[in-house]
Amino acid sequence: MTVINVGLIGLGTVGTGLVRIFHENGSLVENKLGFSLRLKKIAVKDISKAREIPLGKSVLTDKAREILDDPDIDIVVELVGGENPAKEFIISALNKGKSVVTANKLILAKHGKELFEIADKNAVDIGFEASVAGTIPIVRALEEGLAANKIEKIVAIVNGTTNYILTRMTQTFKTFDEALKEAQELGFAEADPSMDIKGNDSAYKLAILSMLAFGMKILPEDVFTEGITGVTPEHIERANSFGYVIKLIAVAESFNGKVSCRVHPVFLEAKHPLSAVQNEFNAIYVVGNAAGETMYYGRGAGQMPTASAVMSDVIELAERHFRDCKKKDCPSRVMETKTRSLFWREKSILPADEVFNKYYLCFPIVDQPGVIGKITTILGVHGISISAVKATIVDKSKNRGLVEIFTHSVREGTVKKALAEITGLSMLTESIFFYRIIE
Amino acid sequence: MTVINVGLIGLGTVGTGLVRIFHENGSLVENKLGFSLRLKKIAVKDISKAREIPLGKSVLTDKAREILDDPDIDIVVELVGGENPAKEFIISALNKGKSVVTANKLILAKHGKELFEIADKNAVDIGFEASVAGTIPIVRALEEGLAANKIEKIVAIVNGTTNYILTRMTQTFKTFDEALKEAQELGFAEADPSMDIKGNDSAYKLAILSMLAFGMKILPEDVFTEGITGVTPEHIERANSFGYVIKLIAVAESFNGKVSCRVHPVFLEAKHPLSAVQNEFNAIYVVGNAAGETMYYGRGAGQMPTASAVMSDVIELAERHFRDCKKKDCPSRVMETKTRSLFWREKSILPADEVFNKYYLCFPIVDQPGVIGKITTILGVHGISISAVKATIVDKSKNRGLVEIFTHSVREGTVKKALAEITGLSMLTESIFFYRIIE
Repeated sequence: MTVINVGLIGLGTVGTGLVRIFHENGSLVENKLGFSLRLKKIAVKDISKAREIPLGKSVLTDKAREILDDPDIDIVVELVGGENPAKEFIISALNKGKSVVTANKLILAKHGKELFEIADKNAVDIGFEASVAGTIPIVRALEEGLAANKIEKIVAIVNGTTNYILTRMTQTFKTFDEALKEAQELGFAEADPSMDIKGNDSAYKLAILSMLAFGMKILPEDVFTEGITGVTPEHIERANSFGYVIKLIAVAESFNGKVSCRVHPVFLEAKHPLSAVQNEFNAIYVVGNAAGETMYYGRGAGQMPTASAVMSDVIELAERHFRDCKKKDCPSRVMETKTRSLFWREKSILPADEVFNKYYLCFPIVDQPGVIGKITTILGVHGISISAVKATIVDKSKNRGLVEIFTHSVREGTVKKALAEITGLSMLTESIFFYRIIE
Repeated sequence: MTVINVGLIGLGTVGTGLVRIFHENGSLVENKLGFSLRLKKIAVKDISKAREIPLGKSVLTDKAREILDDPDIDIVVELVGGENPAKEFIISALNKGKSVVTANKLILAKHGKELFEIADKNAVDIGFEASVAGTIPIVRALEEGLAANKIEKIVAIVNGTTNYILTRMTQTFKTFDEALKEAQELGFAEADPSMDIKGNDSAYKLAILSMLAFGMKILPEDVFTEGITGVTPEHIERANSFGYVIKLIAVAESFNGKVSCRVHPVFLEAKHPLSAVQNEFNAIYVVGNAAGETMYYGRGAGQMPTASAVMSDVIELAERHFRDCKKKDCPSRVMETKTRSLFWREKSILPADEVFNKYYLCFPIVDQPGVIGKITTILGVHGISISAVKATIVDKSKNRGLVEIFTHSVREGTVKKALAEITGLSMLTESIFFYRIIE
């Protein structure tokens, strides 16, 4: 019976999950495959460390080289994380004719194109389903399920930490700091949560999704990024009062051949399918020119959900290597590579200021005659068309009020210019705040 | 440049959509593939019929044989629908070494296993992504994305007609008949809607999903099926009042190696991700033992969404045939077949009466002393444990009331027995109604 051998580098949370899947679902997987799939070697930093799963001593090594140099190993799973040496491991494996599976969003987002080219040259492939949105098979959806589509738009909740914080702020009127603390206590936020709450984690994932959807090398720094640290219970209350929820959203959109990639909080209409995505869950909403609207939902992190995605790639690559073995008489080992479906195009990013959105604008003001007129006049001068205005007295004794305005679709740069002008008016009592709207 | 040729049998709504995708997205697809994909021949009933898309006369034929016998055609797309001659076309194509793509849920549900075996024998494959839930890539999700999982449960909204009717009944308090009429006017329900409203369409799709998830030959008649014709505005109001919505749900669940497959309306908790699936949309919620909860959402029908799914299979199969061409020196043309992943097991169906659910029970009663006692005593005698009771006076002048009971998880057969006994009591003013609950 043919055996396809797998080598694993890195035995942290997800690596341990992968070993558990081999133990618990291994025979099911082999029944499906019709050949033997073996986890031959695991490279770890410290062999002597106690592990939560039983492992034969001979399986562990502290030398990744033993995996990379083993001619019997067809597939290398990189779960070391970080940039280096993970990247060197991946390149070395590819150059030795091994396929690679990784959950490493950082490497994929920064070096994806280069790695795919190395894979192509060696007629092997890279599986990276686990690098975006954990267990959700979004890479397959974009590469296979929607293969016949021009992708028009991706709107995604790809960061569980921030979605958990915003869900709790909405449900319990907690402040951002309180909700963050709760998330940390429950393990949904790290001790240093800045990558999550500032939106960078989402930007990395969006870079990978955009690359797949639009065939461009889009880097994390190409993504306009705003986090959720400025979201207050008042903002959430204002959103709710108009039938919206506040969510941290990653958007990639095609406009006349240019691509806009951005991460920021939005007012999301309550009837949008993403608005029901609660707590630490992720979901990716994709619009294709033939398929129309689709959405993919699941856990974006966690030991078993992420390991499930890693294993799905191991299975697919094992099938290909198996086929390859059976055809060893063939002159070349040209394999189908997913990378081919990255029909690379010249990068063409639409600057954030050029993007059109509808906006919610909130002006805390001194309640005096002419205030609404001044604000709306300035908006009008900039060509910003208003769909609704609401003026409320917040505190009668202090003569404080709120003017809330919903705009029609307008260029972001225009809005910022108008707001800068209004900011100069003396009638403002606090900072203006605004949210982009997704309906 | 290599050309992979596709033959299409049937040029109805979806077939026309496929031609449109070839026209509109063809060059995009070829860029991804790196080879030429050509729609060589289309078999129709009436060549002279006016078509909504321009087609060269030489492309059309009224003889399916011209496609089936053409050695240059690698992939046959069957969009004739119905059982015969569609099934003969599929078998003939497979036996001639062609791969087949079909959207035919009837054939897949009834004859899937046999067709996969014929495909296996001929080392070709059958793509059937479009046969369940239109554009949603659920076949791929089950076969690939969740390949490493034991599937525990599928809960699905796979019929757009009934979901539209129930959505409208909920939003506008229309009766079933009124909502059905509206659905028919909008093209969301057929003139004869019985396959949809009685749940049979969902049962066919569930049979296919269950086959994929559990590797058993499960036939539509193995699915316990109840439709939505009995759902009234009052039921919907009762559901809403307790924080539930009524949805027609298809469930496939594994219990100790046995599989329960059923289609019926349920009280679905408002926080369940499926409860936000509105109008004609479909969604499939899948729980895997590693991935946890996932959900897939999109349009279950319609020209372009369904054609998008058909084309995704054409693309995948074309890639395999292309690889095959490049390896023509090889002795055999063993291709990876998806069918292998149907690790067929002995069929083992759990009868509907053996299934455990929580229940909502509603008893319209004459308001007199002892009524609640009588009902709850009978439930108690049958070992049915109650989680909540609500008694309300509906019409004081007529002395009419309502006793509503929520149960803990209990065997369906037990509930039916107890309800039969309670039905005999004289204090009932109208029929008891009950709903299974999904939380």
